[in-house]
Amino acid sequence: MKTYLQGSDPSIRVPARQVTLSDGTAHSLYDTSGPYTDPGASIDLERGLPGLRAGWIDARGDTVGMPRRAKPGRNVTQLHYARRGDVTPEMEFVALREGVEPSFVRDEIARGRAILPCNVNHPETEPMIIGRNFLVKINANIGNSAVTSSIEEEVEKMTWATRWGADTVMDLSTGKNIHETREWIVRNSPVPIGTVPIYQALEKVDGKAEELTWEIYRDTLIEQAEQGVDYFTIHAGVLLRYVPLTADRITGIVSRGGSILAKWCLAHHKENFLYTRFEEICEIMKAYDVAFSLGDGLRPGCTADANDAAQFAELETLGELTTVAWKHDVQVMIEGPGHVPMHLIHENMTKQLAICHEAPFYTLGPLVTDVAPGYDHITSAIGAAMIGWYGTAMLCYVTPKEHLGLPNKKDVKDGVIAYKIAAHAADLAKGHPRAHHWDDVLSKARFEFRWQDQFDLSLDPETAREFHDETLPAPGAKIAHFCSMCGPHFCSMKITQEVREYAERGMQEKSREFAEMGGEIYTTVSS
Amino acid sequence: MKTYLQGSDPSIRVPARQVTLSDGTAHSLYDTSGPYTDPGASIDLERGLPGLRAGWIDARGDTVGMPRRAKPGRNVTQLHYARRGDVTPEMEFVALREGVEPSFVRDEIARGRAILPCNVNHPETEPMIIGRNFLVKINANIGNSAVTSSIEEEVEKMTWATRWGADTVMDLSTGKNIHETREWIVRNSPVPIGTVPIYQALEKVDGKAEELTWEIYRDTLIEQAEQGVDYFTIHAGVLLRYVPLTADRITGIVSRGGSILAKWCLAHHKENFLYTRFEEICEIMKAYDVAFSLGDGLRPGCTADANDAAQFAELETLGELTTVAWKHDVQVMIEGPGHVPMHLIHENMTKQLAICHEAPFYTLGPLVTDVAPGYDHITSAIGAAMIGWYGTAMLCYVTPKEHLGLPNKKDVKDGVIAYKIAAHAADLAKGHPRAHHWDDVLSKARFEFRWQDQFDLSLDPETAREFHDETLPAPGAKIAHFCSMCGPHFCSMKITQEVREYAERGMQEKSREFAEMGGEIYTTVSS
Repeated sequence: MKTYLQGSDPSIRVPARQVTLSDGTAHSLYDTSGPYTDPGASIDLERGLPGLRAGWIDARGDTVGMPRRAKPGRNVTQLHYARRGDVTPEMEFVALREGVEPSFVRDEIARGRAILPCNVNHPETEPMIIGRNFLVKINANIGNSAVTSSIEEEVEKMTWATRWGADTVMDLSTGKNIHETREWIVRNSPVPIGTVPIYQALEKVDGKAEELTWEIYRDTLIEQAEQGVDYFTIHAGVLLRYVPLTADRITGIVSRGGSILAKWCLAHHKENFLYTRFEEICEIMKAYDVAFSLGDGLRPGCTADANDAAQFAELETLGELTTVAWKHDVQVMIEGPGHVPMHLIHENMTKQLAICHEAPFYTLGPLVTDVAPGYDHITSAIGAAMIGWYGTAMLCYVTPKEHLGLPNKKDVKDGVIAYKIAAHAADLAKGHPRAHHWDDVLSKARFEFRWQDQFDLSLDPETAREFHDETLPAPGAKIAHFCSMCGPHFCSMKITQEVREYAERGMQEKSREFAEMGGEIYTTVSS
Repeated sequence: MKTYLQGSDPSIRVPARQVTLSDGTAHSLYDTSGPYTDPGASIDLERGLPGLRAGWIDARGDTVGMPRRAKPGRNVTQLHYARRGDVTPEMEFVALREGVEPSFVRDEIARGRAILPCNVNHPETEPMIIGRNFLVKINANIGNSAVTSSIEEEVEKMTWATRWGADTVMDLSTGKNIHETREWIVRNSPVPIGTVPIYQALEKVDGKAEELTWEIYRDTLIEQAEQGVDYFTIHAGVLLRYVPLTADRITGIVSRGGSILAKWCLAHHKENFLYTRFEEICEIMKAYDVAFSLGDGLRPGCTADANDAAQFAELETLGELTTVAWKHDVQVMIEGPGHVPMHLIHENMTKQLAICHEAPFYTLGPLVTDVAPGYDHITSAIGAAMIGWYGTAMLCYVTPKEHLGLPNKKDVKDGVIAYKIAAHAADLAKGHPRAHHWDDVLSKARFEFRWQDQFDLSLDPETAREFHDETLPAPGAKIAHFCSMCGPHFCSMKITQEVREYAERGMQEKSREFAEMGGEIYTTVSS
């Protein structure tokens, strides 16, 4: 059931999914699904979602126009406000959502250790935070390509992804109608939207990387910032002198953005214009509060290429650029790999924290092996869970179609669920108290054969119920004190309940007596 | 394509799946599928598989009868032979299969660090080894229950599981026809079969745990050993005094075997008869070469119960029993959890190695969170990959139906593939050279757009091909130098190949010149 936590102002209403259990208690779960799961909300895709944050933005009085833009000389980033000491309504919203103090949210943002991506032109977004001292987040990629898929499909994938738990969505469209597709997505998205602006810039020069110019790229940034994109992947760390470091790799450069820029650099024999124009880009970012997602254009595309000189050289440059962005009070996160075998994952995290001054890390997986195309949501969920535990703030999902084709709705859901598992497993391993409580209430329901409660508390209640019903469809089976694994007369949980009753009838004492006598048996056996 | 490596004797023929690539080279993959994938083999389920090992067993002259049994005073275990210094045909087979020296196989077995499960009454099995200095193995559970499924279905699940890579199969049947189901499975299985004999013993007393006796259990062990079961899960570590340690858990005792024995202990207020009769059990095991899989009856059933006093108390007893079994030259592995959050996994491995004297560890997952019923092949593949990297020798699969129902064929395949991923990721992280080579040839094929090679090298070629064809079904797309993700004009791998050609045309030199000049730009940006 959709509920809202009320903040200090009536406009601050934080959504949650509340599960009421059969014993009357309620358990509240983080909810990314937006107004779509609120029966009281009226949804009109043509009109878009209501501008939840519009009043807050206007009240600050530091923007002008529509699309909004910072007044001359003003900086409208959450980092700027945080450093000034302000707790914005966005920060309060996040604090309620995460169950922490608003001042903590502000301080983590001010420190650069967390970002709150919220373009002033995306008032529809429900504020969320990305940082390693908060719940681990996940991103879902959508987007049409020249080969396939329509705008409607992509908008539906976005609402579908957020319904299952995507905290942000990246629109990676590369085909026709990029602008229009994005407009529909942003207007209807309750979560921050990220893009890779170089994709659209490349469309403007008919796919010819060498014809890209700073002016075309700059105009694309402004166009997208005006639409409300919340973070931009910018591959400013792909430096000319790093490109030859990839020549001996098995899979070279696999990042689309990285390869476009590498090609541009080589064609002109000039330094990457995203790097040389970085301060100008910062000026644009801070006028809309678009956050940087500094792209890892040289990430490894196979396990053999992991943690190599090219990858870590680029990371050094991203660390350098982080300090430049922070000088402008622009929010920054850092993108990470990729394909990395398990024993090399930890080094990625420690290096990133040290080199990038604890700016949030945002990794694609990593995939821990290359041999399972068709199952890369699993190969990558393994790496994602581990790097999330080590400190990555947001995990970019991988779907089963990775390396093979574009994801359909089923693939999007499979990817999101695999990543919710990875993120939650990381929260548990990091000792997040709310995370542990969720496991515990579900496990208690499982042990007590409260099937309905177990389904309702699941990451995917529909699938849990469907799988149960495949073998025991009768309604009576939902209240049965057994399941199809063992049958009615042979159930370990049932036996344990008897054991527990037994134990309560004075076992403690009897076992102490026995322990004295038991020493003898023990000796007999091991002699 | 099925191929065989030839050993020192014509009877030693080690199967492999050979993938011939489009460049003419061949790559050989470990093959568990048995004669079923050999077009030259004639399969007759009524007759069973040929007795590959029968001649080797007979040649040793230390067994009598049919079913076979050790001659009086003889010990027919591979551990016994290894300690005597013999390299058996089984060991040579394994050495060829793993690409190591036969003497290394022998020494690892002699040291107790690996087991080669091969009951003298299961000559149909293709020898395989379980130990942390070999490839990580996986087990698939099958078995009917009182509620559902037939013998034919279970035999088909067994051949299906081994086709996708199960290294051993456990028959956990609990319903009617346990004996007959097992007979069909063993006679047709190319991999070692494990069971939990207490399940059948319990059927013999109509499910009343308190009516179990040593005699009934002993006769069940002999019955199953005569049929050819290769390893027995025996919950001899569930001691009476440990039972009260589980009373405050959220999910008490979740192991079926563990709960049966706990109930027996409490009902009689006596020590577990599997513990008090352990030396007698060893006498049976060594007469057939059945290996111990010392069960973890007190394993945690939820993340909150992980690594608690009950679990580690039992582990101490399993360590004790390991030395008893080794005194009899009986092969031993140790079962492990269960549900364990990531940060508590490593402790399981270090404790097991220390307490159980490096006997192979065989874990169920572990599941790293409880909140995803319907997806526990993923929650557990995460934990399995990690603990495999840390040193676990065999990973017991978990299917998507875990906690909800009995797995069907699709679930069995999903579980097996998830675990092949976990096992292979562990091999990679441990630095296994063959493991890395597999990733590298597949990645090279991917980078060079050799689609057919990529599919053929995949863990699941059928799914990889099917997913690719969903978006680009035309035969031409299989030789296209692009894919549906980016389309023909916008492909990072294509661009990288251009980059590489560029780089080869003297980039190295140009970039050195540039580096000198580049320092200046660098300074401008970061200032």
